Amino acid sequence: MFQINDNYQKLPGSYLFSTIAKKVAAFSEANPDKQIIRLGIGDVTQPIAPAIIEAMHRAVDEMGNAETFHGYAPDLGYEFLRKAIADNDYKARGCDISPDEIFVSDGAKSDSGNIQEIFSVDNRIAVCDPVYPVYVDSNVMAGRTGTYDAQTGMWSNVIYMPCTRENGFVPEFPKETPDMIYLCLPNNPTGTTITKAQLQEWVDYANKVGAVIIYDGAYEAYISETDVAHSIYECEGAKTCAIELKSFSKNAGFTGVRLGYTVVPKELKCGEVSLHGMWARRHGTKFNGAPYIIQRAGEAVYSDAGKAQLMEQIAYYMRNAATIKSGLQESGFEVYGGVNAPYIWLKTPEAMTSWEFFDYLLEKANVVGTPGSGFGPSGEGYFRLTAFGSYENTVAALERIKSI
Amino acid sequence: MFQINDNYQKLPGSYLFSTIAKKVAAFSEANPDKQIIRLGIGDVTQPIAPAIIEAMHRAVDEMGNAETFHGYAPDLGYEFLRKAIADNDYKARGCDISPDEIFVSDGAKSDSGNIQEIFSVDNRIAVCDPVYPVYVDSNVMAGRTGTYDAQTGMWSNVIYMPCTRENGFVPEFPKETPDMIYLCLPNNPTGTTITKAQLQEWVDYANKVGAVIIYDGAYEAYISETDVAHSIYECEGAKTCAIELKSFSKNAGFTGVRLGYTVVPKELKCGEVSLHGMWARRHGTKFNGAPYIIQRAGEAVYSDAGKAQLMEQIAYYMRNAATIKSGLQESGFEVYGGVNAPYIWLKTPEAMTSWEFFDYLLEKANVVGTPGSGFGPSGEGYFRLTAFGSYENTVAALERIKSI
Repeated sequence: MFQINDNYQKLPGSYLFSTIAKKVAAFSEANPDKQIIRLGIGDVTQPIAPAIIEAMHRAVDEMGNAETFHGYAPDLGYEFLRKAIADNDYKARGCDISPDEIFVSDGAKSDSGNIQEIFSVDNRIAVCDPVYPVYVDSNVMAGRTGTYDAQTGMWSNVIYMPCTRENGFVPEFPKETPDMIYLCLPNNPTGTTITKAQLQEWVDYANKVGAVIIYDGAYEAYISETDVAHSIYECEGAKTCAIELKSFSKNAGFTGVRLGYTVVPKELKCGEVSLHGMWARRHGTKFNGAPYIIQRAGEAVYSDAGKAQLMEQIAYYMRNAATIKSGLQESGFEVYGGVNAPYIWLKTPEAMTSWEFFDYLLEKANVVGTPGSGFGPSGEGYFRLTAFGSYENTVAALERIKSI
Repeated sequence: MFQINDNYQKLPGSYLFSTIAKKVAAFSEANPDKQIIRLGIGDVTQPIAPAIIEAMHRAVDEMGNAETFHGYAPDLGYEFLRKAIADNDYKARGCDISPDEIFVSDGAKSDSGNIQEIFSVDNRIAVCDPVYPVYVDSNVMAGRTGTYDAQTGMWSNVIYMPCTRENGFVPEFPKETPDMIYLCLPNNPTGTTITKAQLQEWVDYANKVGAVIIYDGAYEAYISETDVAHSIYECEGAKTCAIELKSFSKNAGFTGVRLGYTVVPKELKCGEVSLHGMWARRHGTKFNGAPYIIQRAGEAVYSDAGKAQLMEQIAYYMRNAATIKSGLQESGFEVYGGVNAPYIWLKTPEAMTSWEFFDYLLEKANVVGTPGSGFGPSGEGYFRLTAFGSYENTVAALERIKSI
């Protein structure tokens, strides 16, 4: 008789955003007259930029013609895209990453969930708390996290690195030594980040203790301060300890287009074994490339027209971030983030829990946000709003919040 | 110090098709004047059908407009596509599969590699031998296969079900009881299949011994005989023992477009635990949906125009299959498959090994095929040719083969 992977049974409740979607649907059904504004899930609202649309139309036409049709893509992605990434995201920033160290994928969510597969189940992971739930959940499924304590919301075998107002949302080196360290910077959900000098300390620490850093740079395009690194490979020694995950979802609005990439430097090894070779084998066995049309869309992100159009798109969202931040501050909220990231992280008022504030905001202002506790125990008492709505909706949401 | 997943170290050599690609590249470099015809990898050559191209252009335009832009897709796929699949691939064949039992993905390779994750690592798998390498390789990575014997090409903890000319390529119930049974029918690589009555016996067997069948129906569109099932759910009792994987790569030429789906019936349970819920959780945690544009392409596969155009495309490839089959037979080869599948499976002549015949064919005819031994130990002494080339190339390849 077949048996299941019992680790799945350990997962408490459903995936955070599924829970929110269900709650909102229930409210909406009970209140069909209320117009809900969604500043909850990190989904973008601006359309795909014209230069990218044009590139996709061209690629669609190519697929319809026998002479220019493209079947299976190269395992690790088309050279045209990997070269554009290497040139623009690395070489231009002084990082020595070659195209064949870049693995194109269908998005950073897949990569951040799958990357743990190439590591031993005996490794101990460390995560910032709060953080994007996929890191912990995918490790739960793999059996790496021990048992769940519903009281504390913590896993017995996960090392939590609290990021709260008390430490300025900067993770501290943990007392116990981790084997794998997940860092998402700028951070989802707090919208805060650390300086390049602080990141260098993490790289030095990882090299010292023999840990690997899984560095999620999904929000890199929103960095506005000059002392913040755009890639972990700006830090000396990162190539022997870090894997970097990147998304096209937030810099180019590809949430429904699906494209991402992962960098595994060839110098990153465990003894004699190259992690690059292992990830290549994983890609070659369980994945068949991102669609040709979508890889051409990714290439257009790096065209001159694409870059100019996306700079405007990011400025649009960051105007929303500023609107939310100043609006909340005027209403007396304690607010973080929104400077190097499209997320605003607020302290819930009057000792409300995160989910209490979620219900309160949904009911009183018909605005959907994300409860901080959904991102980890130290997120309790906080709440996330995103800058990815339309400007009009963002202004309207803030008006409603101010008036309650 | 972090450690790796040691199971990866057990994998012998590289993924079959990567090895072939490297061999062909080396030959090509050494013989720049030779024109190579590729009938090796199962990649299609006909362009995407006009109805699908039109649908993609429309979807691209939607993505460029704020009013019609689509961000994150629903976790399990868009309703429009899931309904089209349920209506056309199931309801029309008398199978009772509802849209919410269908999980849309980026392709059957991902699904066939990932599906094992929801099962215990202690489960014992059974595979047809020869078969598509992803089933075994993904289970090696998970640690389910025991140790590899380079002498026999077999894993100590895998149950092999030989499919050879001796048993008419029909797998027999194994002596040892498996927990998970992979069936790919019509089969890759042999191009043969079994009758609906024979499949019913497998369903009855699985229900009796408590095994789950992972049924890969990637080549279903090529079935020409009436006593062959198009879905395992045509068999009574399949909903309590079978998961079905489907691809758009071969019926619609989506190898570079990337779309597939997996059916996990709600009745399929391990004790009280629903596998449907587990796969939903996996999808929700480690995957973020197939691109909107690609899901619209999938919908167009089921439009009247799409169906008509794809019927022609399949007829085109099946004419190739007939050309290869009769050509080889005229040359005295012993040939199988090609009736319900786009693959021709031939016995290598004069006791050549599969790889010897690969080199012989590449050198003498400049034709690339796939060595049968790459698909499992019982594939030794056989060789696969695919019908996915252009008609002109197929005819030319056969002329060359006949003349050596």
